[in-house]
Amino acid sequence: MRTDYCGNINASHIGQTVTLCGWVNRRRDLGGVIFIDLRDREGIVQVVYDPDLAELFNTASSLRSEFCVQIEGLVRGRPQGQVNKDMGTGEIEILGKGLTILNKAAVLPLDSNQENSEEQRLKYRYLDLRRPLMSDRLKFRAKVTSAVRSYLEGDGFLDIETPILTKATPEGARDYLVPSRTHKGKFFALPQSPQLFKQLLMMSGMDRYYQIVKCFRDEDLRADRQPEFTQIDIETTFLSAEQVMEITEGMIRNLFMKMLDVDLGVFPQMTYADAMRRFGSDKPDLRNPLELVDVADILKDVEFKVFSGPANDAKGRVAVIRVPGGASMTRKQIDEYTKFVGIYGAKGLAWMKVNDIDAGVDGLQSPILKFLGEDVAKQVLTRVAAQSGDILLFGADNATVVTEALGALRLKVGEDLDLLQGQWKPLWVIDFPMFEEFDGQFHALHHPFTAPRDMTADELAADPANALSNAYDMVLNGCELGGGSVRIHDQEMQAKVFNILGISDEEAQVKFGFLLEALKFGAPPHAGLAFGLDRLVMLMTGATSIRDVMAFPKTTTAACPLTDAPGFANDEQLKELSIKTQIAQDKASSSE
Amino acid sequence: MRTDYCGNINASHIGQTVTLCGWVNRRRDLGGVIFIDLRDREGIVQVVYDPDLAELFNTASSLRSEFCVQIEGLVRGRPQGQVNKDMGTGEIEILGKGLTILNKAAVLPLDSNQENSEEQRLKYRYLDLRRPLMSDRLKFRAKVTSAVRSYLEGDGFLDIETPILTKATPEGARDYLVPSRTHKGKFFALPQSPQLFKQLLMMSGMDRYYQIVKCFRDEDLRADRQPEFTQIDIETTFLSAEQVMEITEGMIRNLFMKMLDVDLGVFPQMTYADAMRRFGSDKPDLRNPLELVDVADILKDVEFKVFSGPANDAKGRVAVIRVPGGASMTRKQIDEYTKFVGIYGAKGLAWMKVNDIDAGVDGLQSPILKFLGEDVAKQVLTRVAAQSGDILLFGADNATVVTEALGALRLKVGEDLDLLQGQWKPLWVIDFPMFEEFDGQFHALHHPFTAPRDMTADELAADPANALSNAYDMVLNGCELGGGSVRIHDQEMQAKVFNILGISDEEAQVKFGFLLEALKFGAPPHAGLAFGLDRLVMLMTGATSIRDVMAFPKTTTAACPLTDAPGFANDEQLKELSIKTQIAQDKASSSE
Repeated sequence: MRTDYCGNINASHIGQTVTLCGWVNRRRDLGGVIFIDLRDREGIVQVVYDPDLAELFNTASSLRSEFCVQIEGLVRGRPQGQVNKDMGTGEIEILGKGLTILNKAAVLPLDSNQENSEEQRLKYRYLDLRRPLMSDRLKFRAKVTSAVRSYLEGDGFLDIETPILTKATPEGARDYLVPSRTHKGKFFALPQSPQLFKQLLMMSGMDRYYQIVKCFRDEDLRADRQPEFTQIDIETTFLSAEQVMEITEGMIRNLFMKMLDVDLGVFPQMTYADAMRRFGSDKPDLRNPLELVDVADILKDVEFKVFSGPANDAKGRVAVIRVPGGASMTRKQIDEYTKFVGIYGAKGLAWMKVNDIDAGVDGLQSPILKFLGEDVAKQVLTRVAAQSGDILLFGADNATVVTEALGALRLKVGEDLDLLQGQWKPLWVIDFPMFEEFDGQFHALHHPFTAPRDMTADELAADPANALSNAYDMVLNGCELGGGSVRIHDQEMQAKVFNILGISDEEAQVKFGFLLEALKFGAPPHAGLAFGLDRLVMLMTGATSIRDVMAFPKTTTAACPLTDAPGFANDEQLKELSIKTQIAQDKASSSE
Repeated sequence: MRTDYCGNINASHIGQTVTLCGWVNRRRDLGGVIFIDLRDREGIVQVVYDPDLAELFNTASSLRSEFCVQIEGLVRGRPQGQVNKDMGTGEIEILGKGLTILNKAAVLPLDSNQENSEEQRLKYRYLDLRRPLMSDRLKFRAKVTSAVRSYLEGDGFLDIETPILTKATPEGARDYLVPSRTHKGKFFALPQSPQLFKQLLMMSGMDRYYQIVKCFRDEDLRADRQPEFTQIDIETTFLSAEQVMEITEGMIRNLFMKMLDVDLGVFPQMTYADAMRRFGSDKPDLRNPLELVDVADILKDVEFKVFSGPANDAKGRVAVIRVPGGASMTRKQIDEYTKFVGIYGAKGLAWMKVNDIDAGVDGLQSPILKFLGEDVAKQVLTRVAAQSGDILLFGADNATVVTEALGALRLKVGEDLDLLQGQWKPLWVIDFPMFEEFDGQFHALHHPFTAPRDMTADELAADPANALSNAYDMVLNGCELGGGSVRIHDQEMQAKVFNILGISDEEAQVKFGFLLEALKFGAPPHAGLAFGLDRLVMLMTGATSIRDVMAFPKTTTAACPLTDAPGFANDEQLKELSIKTQIAQDKASSSE
């Protein structure tokens, strides 16, 4: 039905007759001539209908936005003044010699000139996706998956599918359940990740596995969460953490080079402890130059209890962020930041402006100066290498509050003051703790199959609170792109970890008995990683939500305005599944 | 941890020291020396431990099957008499200089020398997949998907993901349902195919879409069915049926060339009517040379009512299969075939042996010869071009019974008598009827979005029973590899088809309202196809079940013996979902 895509026509086609199909992006009637911007996946081309072919001209004048048409015409160069360098096809236009309306379009429910609500965009997704911005993102995503696949396949990774109808997985989020018809009263769970299956594949000797795979979490949604999302899932055998990091870092570096012509360089590595200490986050945005600097040692003898209290408490922390140029902040701005850190539990925000670094205390401006004294203030200034025009922002409280509050404040101030440097700042965060302790209980920081770093099972059991895991997260611009670990391949170690996590032998047997069993039969050392594809594509395309890089996402209440899913099931279906909905029951009891 | 794969070591490595990781495939102690067959994904290599290194020798003698080990050693040529040409590594062996046991293996639950039950194989799938036969199939499958992707991407197809949590789809099989937590009493359905989403993507202007995607059907399982299966799903815009067939035929031809070095040639095309008439099947196995030949015109005047009845009935059929070499069939064999066609409703199986074609009626042997007479018998012999040694098998009944019974008999006799010719026989079946009529109702032969061939909506409505669809199935060796069609892109036509199918306007609105709505806005002509990946890989690898080409399949009762899925949900989960299981209710009422 066509000889080429609209977007591919250029000066090399001048003099040729082409047939094209696409949608009317715009019709303009100018000087007795009709101009049609014809659009397809590859771009837009201008078609001109002259009045000398009356029938054709009449058809052309009946065209409205989003009519689907087939045109035939002669490619010719545009007159000099009309060349449009912003368009790929801007040097040429097509003199229309034929026109067939393939399908008309009713008045459009989306306004092409205005922002449409997301609900409307999702309801008419097929129209929303016609916008070049959106279709370019889906094209970009397809190219990303293709590049990832070819990189991994070139490195010996096999694409192996794992089940979607499976057993409840241990990631800790809420599972989507699927009632079984043949096993009454039982349920499949949709996988939160193929974690255990990919480990079983390594135990099967498949050596290197990857899959670009849907995962599911029934959680309350945020801007960057969806009920179903896509993972680039990777697992390897006989490789160290460093080797897995090398391969996957290479994959991401290759991807950025191929897709964006950006060289990410070698990724720096940072321990979890350093990341928390310097940036107040386990996924630091290194484009932001602000850092948390510890000053407890300087402040522990001051009279000011707000500082000396936490400074002398083993669980306390006193830290300061030096903000270049921050001395120009208004009182109102500082008040807003004080409110902001309050969200994270900070009781206040002490500050010190450095108006003139060479003028001693006279050059400083701060409500707390009087509590510190000149000598202490100087030590702090020296510690943070303060310069004229800076503001210092202080946090003093228990360590968690200070770290979280200043970590968040650092990001906010950095954005507000436009301090971000560089476009792409990747890093690896390593040496995570094995466990977090809360509610009087150890919890796995990653998941219960993560191996500890350089420890025997007995050593781990002796001091779980201080054990480090052999896990690694890849972080880009403050987002976690992916995370992984060396897995436990030793049955005793796995049992010990379940033990530390408070999982009884019986519970371990019910939930993970097949894994413990599999570890008995020559399970190899293995390690892997998973990337969030949606978030990766979102970052790379500059989209602000993962919904904008998915063809058919759900709303924040996990519904689809297009198909109207979820929907009611009929009674026969529910009877076959031997389940009743509460709502059906309520109806039934009220009618009794 | 290693320098190469076991299976990659060959004569070019002689003199090098290598480090390998893998599993003990076999240990033999011969002449005071220990031979270890070490296995990984790529193959097996022989490692030799001499007693002169005592500690190493002792470790080696402790090895048992499936221990996971790391070895170091010197590659050397095997002595002349010991070269094994059946092994890729058969020219060399490795003199062991190091040995580390990475993980021991308990006594194996699968017997390596015996056939294990499928239940056992699935329970210990990670051991079953270590068998080279099984891991080779998964490797083959990964290469197939990779080849398919690169072919389609090279042809401008974009890999676009469609939702797994969606609305009930119209394929007609039973849906898997997923209760929604945020929309109480409502359910998502898992897709039986991405049919409507891929059509919506064409309406979005994505032009060419493909996806290798999981689909779900909650049906009672057979050998070649699984609750979740994988489709190569394809949709295109502005292409005719012929062009879609050309692209996808090229894809399969390319795949067979690349993977099996087999040239499938140009696929013949056959109408549905011809396929049913000549082969009694809409997916004829063309390796089988037997055909159904109509003889009603010859037999309509014979006295024998069994023949003349159906021969004179517009809905009847009388046909014959000529089986070369079949004259040697025993009476017992013929009786078994008679019983066999009974399954399909045939009341008997008339036959005629051609012992000597040149001897007239004397050369024939048949219980029905006396009812036919010499003249009629000769006409039949001429029609089927009978030769000495043939048997003719007759079917006479209503057309459906004859077609089905002889269609099945043809396959059975062809296999029993080893008549199959050639290894690969692909074809396209085209010109399907739009509808089947049963239970006083029209049903879509493909699905309700299939366009009719060369018809307006009014013409279709006027004579739906005789309308042909613009659908096409790709058949290989009697299996349907894939099927597709040109879709309806016209709202009026779509409404008319729903109408013919007895779907009320209201029901159409509830189920497919979004599709009808989408057709209003410049929907383009589009067409596509879907292949069953599991079945394709099964055929290509010579496996007998799709379970053997899936990493973690389910049993025929849709359970997973490995993970023990499905399992019970806890009360809190069910409460959050506002559903109750019948079983929980039964428990509750009995305890009240």
